[in-house]
Amino acid sequence: MPAKQQLLYEGKAKKIYATDEPDILWVEYKDSATAFNGEKKATIAGKGRLNNEISSLLFTKLQEAGVANHFMKKLSPTEQLVKSVAIIPLEVIVRNVVAGSLAKRLGLAEGTPLETPLVEFYYKNDDLGDPLLVEDHIAILKLASREEVAWLKREALKVNDVLRAHFAERKVRLIDFKLEFGRTADGAILLADEVSPDTCRLWDAETNERLDKDVFRRDLGSLTEAYEVILERLGGESACIK
Amino acid sequence: MPAKQQLLYEGKAKKIYATDEPDILWVEYKDSATAFNGEKKATIAGKGRLNNEISSLLFTKLQEAGVANHFMKKLSPTEQLVKSVAIIPLEVIVRNVVAGSLAKRLGLAEGTPLETPLVEFYYKNDDLGDPLLVEDHIAILKLASREEVAWLKREALKVNDVLRAHFAERKVRLIDFKLEFGRTADGAILLADEVSPDTCRLWDAETNERLDKDVFRRDLGSLTEAYEVILERLGGESACIK
Repeated sequence: MPAKQQLLYEGKAKKIYATDEPDILWVEYKDSATAFNGEKKATIAGKGRLNNEISSLLFTKLQEAGVANHFMKKLSPTEQLVKSVAIIPLEVIVRNVVAGSLAKRLGLAEGTPLETPLVEFYYKNDDLGDPLLVEDHIAILKLASREEVAWLKREALKVNDVLRAHFAERKVRLIDFKLEFGRTADGAILLADEVSPDTCRLWDAETNERLDKDVFRRDLGSLTEAYEVILERLGGESACIK
Repeated sequence: MPAKQQLLYEGKAKKIYATDEPDILWVEYKDSATAFNGEKKATIAGKGRLNNEISSLLFTKLQEAGVANHFMKKLSPTEQLVKSVAIIPLEVIVRNVVAGSLAKRLGLAEGTPLETPLVEFYYKNDDLGDPLLVEDHIAILKLASREEVAWLKREALKVNDVLRAHFAERKVRLIDFKLEFGRTADGAILLADEVSPDTCRLWDAETNERLDKDVFRRDLGSLTEAYEVILERLGGESACIK
């Protein structure tokens, strides 16, 4: 078992620690929520546990389905071990239904289904406001090769196939989600970061009730109650006393 | 000679009139300048004449080089006849050097040369602020087929080859430009709108002095003096008394 060492990085939702094994990182999910590039912030007790549990379940499901990712082991309700990668500064967004920034960009109604899943790339750069990129922009910025971009697109669509079916069986619609990928020391690319209601839009299949971070972004009710619904439907251990 | 009839459309920089021939439109270039989606406006005496003269010269040059376009004939200092097309609501931007919105989007210094010319598509939609589109967005909005998008890209690069060389011989650097295309009644696609210092970034090859609408956007001096330089270098008739 690797031993936790110094804090390497503190992000909006997670702290990343080194371990005594150079290829392994220790992740702690925080009880904080942020939106609109950090303009809206809150501390929400229990959120770290929920995202750690949900992300662990979904990364495990993806590994079973052949999508290699950085997840190694859940350590505690709020902690997990992951393989160390250098994050590629691209947010890879997959969309099945129009929502969020796509609705604004194209002037289409939120909830409009897309005929085929859409993959978009955004530059992971807070100072620039995470702008949309076309593939030629990625080449100009030398963020990834054209072959890597094609692979990222295929892999993101594979993640979509797996998660969309998995959620559909549990009466949840996967509207869209954000993925981040990273390079290992030996040059492989792995899915990394997290897969949780912070990074996915998830709507109840019957009522279209929001069960994701839009509850926080748009003040739609209790974020932890929504995330508990997702955790329960995924078969995870809920902390609620019924 | 077609006869001018009713006003069909008044845009920011041009008025479009019908003629007694259904396939032919009468264009009048206005003395108005706008920028930032209409937030900044001014009347600039002589601007309509300059853009009509320059656009006529450049459309003629492009036709000679095999780039079909809507231009038919210059009628007067501020008027021209063009073939009637239904404009495709895409702004096709070609860039040779980083400037304007690309500098902001990618966080790169204005003036950085691009290794290869970049083609971008923006949704021509004032209400949405003319957003950048990836090719899948164009498909979702059904603005053009994938084959048409590929053709538009090739045609835009051909325009770049012709204009870049033409300006370079006249000691002007073609930094970037916007094109609009339209469909004729029989389904052909033609380059349309205008090609002028309103739609191109043009820098003096030696001093990098701005000779385009950035003079107006950024309050860099006299817009008509800058446009006169372009007209003179293109061999057009200047109205200045020397």
